[in-house]
Amino acid sequence: MHLEHLGIAVSDLTAARKLYTKLLNVAPYKEEVVEDQGVTTLFFMAGESKVELLEATRPDSPIAKYIEKRGEGIHHVAFEVKDIHAEMERLRKEGFRLLSEEPTIGADNKLVCFVHPKSAGGVLVELCQSRS
Amino acid sequence: MHLEHLGIAVSDLTAARKLYTKLLNVAPYKEEVVEDQGVTTLFFMAGESKVELLEATRPDSPIAKYIEKRGEGIHHVAFEVKDIHAEMERLRKEGFRLLSEEPTIGADNKLVCFVHPKSAGGVLVELCQSRS
Repeated sequence: MHLEHLGIAVSDLTAARKLYTKLLNVAPYKEEVVEDQGVTTLFFMAGESKVELLEATRPDSPIAKYIEKRGEGIHHVAFEVKDIHAEMERLRKEGFRLLSEEPTIGADNKLVCFVHPKSAGGVLVELCQSRS
Repeated sequence: MHLEHLGIAVSDLTAARKLYTKLLNVAPYKEEVVEDQGVTTLFFMAGESKVELLEATRPDSPIAKYIEKRGEGIHHVAFEVKDIHAEMERLRKEGFRLLSEEPTIGADNKLVCFVHPKSAGGVLVELCQSRS
């Protein structure tokens, strides 16, 4: 699996767009709302991996709750896998706790699944598989 | 710049080695002590990027302090640049606050420099440049 993207929780996407454009020295290439997860996402390329900014679209969004608790910052890391169903099965057998029984549809046209940070050393890990 | 590695703070490297070997489904390829920074590091490949586990070697290590305050989890993200001095100068001019005036020698035979999270949206950003 390769490090597909790093997800960063931001409270103000307009300000964060400017900040990360300066920091990464590159313009974002895509903005996408994922209503299901209550987020607006903004993507930057950083080599093979991407940086994904996440702004909440509603107060009960996981991102709003995260920022309330921990402040802005790195929210999750996503690894691309070839077969998400097989990988979910492998991780379940290894004792990891998954946040959903089946993959859901995430940003960037991917099937996604999250591993609970309590079972993964405090890290919110996303598995993703391209749908195209 | 590309996403070179993701640094994860762990309290017990022996346990974390087992956990991340299962999670990433790959064995670590290198362990290295960086006395200067008070850390033992353990590296896994994840495509073009690496996952770096960080365990404190002493109580006043930045990693020990981080875990005391926030618990185990993602500590920093590192981006490889071609010319770290030029990049530090660029970021200073853009208003970012750097944690050192000059690059220091980090793990993996690299020159490194950190950007203060307060100036970078709550994210501890490392710049690095290979010395070889």
